[in-house]
Amino acid sequence: MKKRILVDMDGVLADVYSRFFELHEKESGVRLTINEVAGMLEADAFPNQRKWVTTPGFFRTVPVMAGSCDGLKLLNHNFEVIVVSMATEFPHSLTDKLLWLHEHFPFISWKQIVFCGNKDLIRADIMIDDHFKNLDNFNGETILYTQPHNMKGTDHRHKTVASWAEIEILFDLNLSKYRNMI
Amino acid sequence: MKKRILVDMDGVLADVYSRFFELHEKESGVRLTINEVAGMLEADAFPNQRKWVTTPGFFRTVPVMAGSCDGLKLLNHNFEVIVVSMATEFPHSLTDKLLWLHEHFPFISWKQIVFCGNKDLIRADIMIDDHFKNLDNFNGETILYTQPHNMKGTDHRHKTVASWAEIEILFDLNLSKYRNMI
Repeated sequence: MKKRILVDMDGVLADVYSRFFELHEKESGVRLTINEVAGMLEADAFPNQRKWVTTPGFFRTVPVMAGSCDGLKLLNHNFEVIVVSMATEFPHSLTDKLLWLHEHFPFISWKQIVFCGNKDLIRADIMIDDHFKNLDNFNGETILYTQPHNMKGTDHRHKTVASWAEIEILFDLNLSKYRNMI
Repeated sequence: MKKRILVDMDGVLADVYSRFFELHEKESGVRLTINEVAGMLEADAFPNQRKWVTTPGFFRTVPVMAGSCDGLKLLNHNFEVIVVSMATEFPHSLTDKLLWLHEHFPFISWKQIVFCGNKDLIRADIMIDDHFKNLDNFNGETILYTQPHNMKGTDHRHKTVASWAEIEILFDLNLSKYRNMI
């Protein structure tokens, strides 16, 4: 039986920071850098972040994280992939997020998607996430995906990856036999 | 620690059959009865059912199941309630369902809501559902909520209730000390 792996959306499949930097520059005229926001909560780094994420349509236009399409396809051949997003806080994000997944990751079926308000409810073997609050309570293998907000935190219980290329290496997925399957 | 109970939406909190009977009558001129559709899949009983449930707005206007507001409030005092809906099949249902829950069950926080495509993923102690496919694979106490489509099925592994009043009796919730808390 394949191991079940939970893959987060924002900050893992969806490159929300790209969009935050872009919107912040558009609204304030200031282009922030990763170093300037490293270690800060998103809402502290970008004062309008809550306004943006509660606006219908925001999650429909977020860029895809580099390498995540091929990477998730490889994971999907080797694991039972479940895409999980803490999305129920924002009612208008839900339909946007599902349509976005169908557009960019059409090989993920609706049966592999969970929108919830608490990831502790879900039974799985491995979790990839950018938030310590999700990883810290998980009873399985935990992988922290580096994003600006978690750059100054450390927790040696979690493996850390900074890209989808590193996820492929970590799971030894970068093999021609799988590459042919993409 | 409180036991965790999964409560289904359609056919348990949301009286989808009332809406199906109403729409069927409006579109065909024929008022069906419960006896006429008992034991049939919803899609067989109502040929336009798939069109209705995929129409944006459908799940925003479904009537609340009789007694479910007070009943869920009582459960919420005594259990860790998680409202779970197999909603990811229908992208446009998601936002509608969340706004509907906030309107009719405002005491259920966004942290207590899960929209998914497979209820087997969720860890819990008790499940109330109207579908055998969800109850049959569940590793805990299972309660079948009677709806026309399941009326001719029997499975003695599951307790059966035909109303929220029966859920209150089953869990011995119908006590004045709880009634005062509503």
